[in-house]
Amino acid sequence: MRVIGIDPGLRNMGWGIVDVFGSKTRHIANGTCRSSNKESLAMRLMSLHRQLSDVLAIHQPDTSAVELTFVNKDGAGSLKLGQARAICLLAPAQYGLDVAEYAPNQVKKVVVGVGHAEKQQVDHMVRMQLGAVEIHSADAADALAIALCHAHHAQFAGRLDAAIAKAGAA
Amino acid sequence: MRVIGIDPGLRNMGWGIVDVFGSKTRHIANGTCRSSNKESLAMRLMSLHRQLSDVLAIHQPDTSAVELTFVNKDGAGSLKLGQARAICLLAPAQYGLDVAEYAPNQVKKVVVGVGHAEKQQVDHMVRMQLGAVEIHSADAADALAIALCHAHHAQFAGRLDAAIAKAGAA
Repeated sequence: MRVIGIDPGLRNMGWGIVDVFGSKTRHIANGTCRSSNKESLAMRLMSLHRQLSDVLAIHQPDTSAVELTFVNKDGAGSLKLGQARAICLLAPAQYGLDVAEYAPNQVKKVVVGVGHAEKQQVDHMVRMQLGAVEIHSADAADALAIALCHAHHAQFAGRLDAAIAKAGAA
Repeated sequence: MRVIGIDPGLRNMGWGIVDVFGSKTRHIANGTCRSSNKESLAMRLMSLHRQLSDVLAIHQPDTSAVELTFVNKDGAGSLKLGQARAICLLAPAQYGLDVAEYAPNQVKKVVVGVGHAEKQQVDHMVRMQLGAVEIHSADAADALAIALCHAHHAQFAGRLDAAIAKAGAA
């Protein structure tokens, strides 16, 4: 199963792709879709949508996950992030993928073991789990962490399904 | 020139289309793209994108305008609206249109004459300017007001260009 994780952002949108076989994960690719604040918002969204759609077409993931956005009191920031986030949800859905959503502390808990881990710790554990891979940016590292979190949940769901099937057959 | 106005919303996204000939405007169509909160956010955004893209393909506008969102302290609301707004900006840009943005009080000032007009006043003036047309919803009425505002600005810009060209030729 191939998983894409996406970290929403209007200027830098990280993405990371891992393959999952049983309990093993392998890094496939990671990168950052970018848009310039010199362009209009409509052009930026279109550019991000095109870049992300290209990543999906090239790497053909089977499922996707996006980070749930932490809502704060900065309305303008929430609005901007909401606009970027829409692209992260739309592009995989248009590609026919399920889009799972995980809160930042869920991602950290799976990847680091605690929900309140620092950014560097997450980055370190992503590298530990995926081996010596080149990570494109901090946003791409976050995206790989989201992909690993989704892979973990999918593995768990798979084992649960198998156990239920076995119990049913017994 | 054919103008589409779009009023962003996740549940109800209004749209309205008018034709502009010199100082005259004619209503072409209006409607509401809807999404159900029983579906996942990704599916809702995909559905709204498809509905709005269909409207663009059917009515073939030449230019578009979207209401600028008023940012308040409700972070969750801003995030939701931001996600819906991204679709309103993305779909026309993908269709090759310029996307103008107007603040609610700019729209009211053009359509009613004052920036602090009530919703009913806007609705009334839209009906006055477009004649006896059936308006699909309050959101569609807002979208028609946005289209009228954009038409007005485009007319003014056209007259300005003509005056500058005339002054240059003189």
